[in-house]
Amino acid sequence: MRKLIALPVLSADALSSVAYGPESMLAVLVLAGGSGLGWSLPVSAAIAFLMLAVGLSYRQTIRAYPHGGGSYIVAGRNLGRVPGLVAAGGLITDYVLTVAVSISSGLAAVTSAIPSLRSAVVPIGLALIAFLLAANLRGVRQAGALFAAPTYAFIVAIALLVTVGLIDAGARGFRALPAPALHASSAVTVLLVLRAFASGSTAMTGIEAISNAVPAFKPVEWRNARTTLTWMIGLLIAMFTGIVVLVHVDGIVPESSQTTLSQLAHLDFGSGPLYVYTQAATALVLLLAADTAYNDFPRVMFLLARDRFAPRPFLRMGDRLAFNNGIVVLSVVASLVFVAFGGNTSSLIPLYAVGVFLAFTLSQAGMVVHWWRVRGARWRTSMAIGAIGCAMSATVFLIAGITKFTAGAWVSLLIVLVFTTVALLTRRHFDRVDRATGLGAPASRDGESEQTPSQLSNLVIVPIPRLDRVSVRALAYAVSLRQPVLALHVSPTAEEARRFRDYWHAWGDHVPLELIESPYRAVIPPVVAYVESLHTQRPELTITVIVPDLAVGHLWQRPLHDDTGARLRHALAPLSKVVVASVRFHV
Amino acid sequence: MRKLIALPVLSADALSSVAYGPESMLAVLVLAGGSGLGWSLPVSAAIAFLMLAVGLSYRQTIRAYPHGGGSYIVAGRNLGRVPGLVAAGGLITDYVLTVAVSISSGLAAVTSAIPSLRSAVVPIGLALIAFLLAANLRGVRQAGALFAAPTYAFIVAIALLVTVGLIDAGARGFRALPAPALHASSAVTVLLVLRAFASGSTAMTGIEAISNAVPAFKPVEWRNARTTLTWMIGLLIAMFTGIVVLVHVDGIVPESSQTTLSQLAHLDFGSGPLYVYTQAATALVLLLAADTAYNDFPRVMFLLARDRFAPRPFLRMGDRLAFNNGIVVLSVVASLVFVAFGGNTSSLIPLYAVGVFLAFTLSQAGMVVHWWRVRGARWRTSMAIGAIGCAMSATVFLIAGITKFTAGAWVSLLIVLVFTTVALLTRRHFDRVDRATGLGAPASRDGESEQTPSQLSNLVIVPIPRLDRVSVRALAYAVSLRQPVLALHVSPTAEEARRFRDYWHAWGDHVPLELIESPYRAVIPPVVAYVESLHTQRPELTITVIVPDLAVGHLWQRPLHDDTGARLRHALAPLSKVVVASVRFHV
Repeated sequence: MRKLIALPVLSADALSSVAYGPESMLAVLVLAGGSGLGWSLPVSAAIAFLMLAVGLSYRQTIRAYPHGGGSYIVAGRNLGRVPGLVAAGGLITDYVLTVAVSISSGLAAVTSAIPSLRSAVVPIGLALIAFLLAANLRGVRQAGALFAAPTYAFIVAIALLVTVGLIDAGARGFRALPAPALHASSAVTVLLVLRAFASGSTAMTGIEAISNAVPAFKPVEWRNARTTLTWMIGLLIAMFTGIVVLVHVDGIVPESSQTTLSQLAHLDFGSGPLYVYTQAATALVLLLAADTAYNDFPRVMFLLARDRFAPRPFLRMGDRLAFNNGIVVLSVVASLVFVAFGGNTSSLIPLYAVGVFLAFTLSQAGMVVHWWRVRGARWRTSMAIGAIGCAMSATVFLIAGITKFTAGAWVSLLIVLVFTTVALLTRRHFDRVDRATGLGAPASRDGESEQTPSQLSNLVIVPIPRLDRVSVRALAYAVSLRQPVLALHVSPTAEEARRFRDYWHAWGDHVPLELIESPYRAVIPPVVAYVESLHTQRPELTITVIVPDLAVGHLWQRPLHDDTGARLRHALAPLSKVVVASVRFHV
Repeated sequence: MRKLIALPVLSADALSSVAYGPESMLAVLVLAGGSGLGWSLPVSAAIAFLMLAVGLSYRQTIRAYPHGGGSYIVAGRNLGRVPGLVAAGGLITDYVLTVAVSISSGLAAVTSAIPSLRSAVVPIGLALIAFLLAANLRGVRQAGALFAAPTYAFIVAIALLVTVGLIDAGARGFRALPAPALHASSAVTVLLVLRAFASGSTAMTGIEAISNAVPAFKPVEWRNARTTLTWMIGLLIAMFTGIVVLVHVDGIVPESSQTTLSQLAHLDFGSGPLYVYTQAATALVLLLAADTAYNDFPRVMFLLARDRFAPRPFLRMGDRLAFNNGIVVLSVVASLVFVAFGGNTSSLIPLYAVGVFLAFTLSQAGMVVHWWRVRGARWRTSMAIGAIGCAMSATVFLIAGITKFTAGAWVSLLIVLVFTTVALLTRRHFDRVDRATGLGAPASRDGESEQTPSQLSNLVIVPIPRLDRVSVRALAYAVSLRQPVLALHVSPTAEEARRFRDYWHAWGDHVPLELIESPYRAVIPPVVAYVESLHTQRPELTITVIVPDLAVGHLWQRPLHDDTGARLRHALAPLSKVVVASVRFHV
């Protein structure tokens, strides 16, 4: 990817976060009234500093892990298996909430402009998630100008907003506009300020996207990725501080009926085309941000599957089935969370902070250990940057996780816990299978060690429902293997059995025939019973059941026929030393 | 089955019909006011005569078709393929409407006693259909005392009702009670009387059940079945005429708020325990009648499948999957009809009459042809009975079908039409397959006639994902077949391919190895491409692909693994002369 395309595509998630981050911070501070809001600048400075620290740390991660250094890899390699999985769990939570928060925040941008839609936020949100799901099931690739446009439009909108706003404010000498009387329900406490810091920090969610996608850049990949990351962090800090400063000088107080960005845009642009443009760009970039979760998810699942913490089908990234199952689960969980929290951004923010900053904390901690181990050039500086980022991220995680535990943060922690447990159980299963199937392993469950070909003796059984070309082809194949062959026919009555034996003789009696009587026209159970008893009597035999299979052309014709092959395969599956082969006859 | 059990089980459908038959007749006559209702006795006499004629005809059918003589068989054998299928279509419609009408009429019995439930008839009805579906999916057998009780309870209830009613009426000298003033919206026309006849004839739906189930009786089956049928017809005519006469002498006028039976029971018993008993017995026998459709349906499908008009899985009557698919379809269609007609019995009656009397007409016509052909003892009498039954049934069918076409009868005719078309298409498919697979047939689609075993040359290919016991077992099996064997390994990189070749040498190099490089970790497409190109280059080879398959113990573990066997089978299905076998390794 070229840098000018990579920048908007990979930073949609991070940059769009300024649509809800500053507002989330203000929503906490306003609880302490005007004096609370007075803390917005220092808290924002801390957040901007955190952005810088984490951003610098990721710059170094890109250099250290040029094949992609997501939280899972960095934490897993440096801190161990469980921290790696917990970081991956944090990422999964991150993706779920990227969908839920981006949709809810995007809808808030829309309802600020069109208040009549407010009562329909939940159904519209669900429809949007369904739309994203459908688009990703159909396999829309996130790339190209179409996906770059909303991000650039949003950057332009915020740049205009801040510039025009600051010019206006400068024209009146930066005097704050008259603020409404505020009711303070809380005093300014350390905890309140920390909570504002934690909530505001969601303005940097998505900052890790570039470090995950280093291999997608043009060569020299890590260098281009690092440059792009630097641009993105610069933009992020500029947009974030611009908005916060403008909110401060304009004396904006967060409202429930419209977003802070909408208030600023109204002040700057009135209600004209520029206002509509700002809101539309915000909504679009947030929709794009929600879509990024669908692109990031399979990448993490691939890495987990490679390390055998996730089902093997995720290894085939092109495997639509595995991918589709994954994104359906992602959509369902995101929908549940979205509905449970009423599509309300500020209720979702604590959940989001928990997941994202858990992954950040573990990733930064991993980088600290990395530098301690490697001790390359300027390792002390790098380690210090990582340590600061780690400590600040941990603060955000702990504040959000503890103070908002009952208000929903438990949901994120539960997702992480369930995810980690399932991943560990999956790995245990794969390890067990490996021990059982390894060439040096002792006897298998069948109680036998592997036999050499000369120790195997075969018997081929061909169930013949009737004498037709389907059966003849299967018989010819069976005989051509030059192993003992037995044909098997199930008749409902003795009379029909006799008649079949006559046909068999007339046809030439090339193969020994065994007749079974089964009064209820059931075919599978008698064949299975016959094979089972043979298996018990002659356990040294490997029994190959060759099923004559009719292949019909059209899908609708398939249910008209007995799918004998599949049913026999299923019924014989529990038996060891039984091989089922089907010889197809195409009509 | 003993006769005393067979009677209630097999006649639940027929006897329960008196709960709605008389009322349906009255509901038509009342349109012409008091003078209309005056026609109730003559119309009922005609219906009783029809019951007698059809009943006598079925007595003879039982004798002539002791292995079960449903409308499908009698019409098919004597009139030809299409009339037989149309009769079967009528039966299918019959089953759908037996469910819908019995449920709606049973609920009417309940809401007559508990009017507050009336607004919830549709959801309750759907819940009852869902209950019947669930019970039949679980495989409840319709037999024994539990299923006999409701029918006997209903017979007792009607006997008590009629006896007490007639004694009361006798005590007042059979003077009709003062009737309410009636508004006549129509004159007494021939058409009105015929419509009343057609509607009232639904009192005999289900009369054919015994003739379908002859083999279920104790020997001598046909004799016992015939005796039971005679009892049933006697009971049916007695109950029907008893109710109609009592309605007449009591001057009952049909109401929309309660059923006619409920009105009679109120008059006889007040609102005490006997009233509740009557309504409960009515509701229960109707629920049982609805259940009989679920038992009759697979029997008809079996007969159709035997004649290759229906999918083969229906031949295995014990096959839960086919049976379950069938009863799910039955329930869904019955639910749709029930909801579309608002759970209203009188709206459903024309649909019911069309389906049932179409089957009756064709069955009686078949018997007429039968007697004409056979000309046994007293064939003229038998033929006359059949002809009268046929003519009267046809009248009912035509009246209901024509006068109520737009009011819903088209639904029944559509079901019959769709059913017949699908059955004929199914048969055509089976005939084509037979022609293609018959031993005397010309070359198959593959463009080749069948080869003898000595003309076949085999190549066995074993795809090896990695060297473990799973693969070694598959290789040992492949070699034991003593045909040329080739192992196939797909590597993502040249380096991995080299490493695998080294392992292979170390392991002993027993089998020639082919290495394929495929950069995207996809395994199936390269293997399929390899087999395809081999198939093109060496079309004379029969290629057997032996897949090493891991069989894991628990169901939840299955999605963790690539189901390579199934995927290869699916991908290779279009190729002829390719056999896929899987060698399972049980962990």
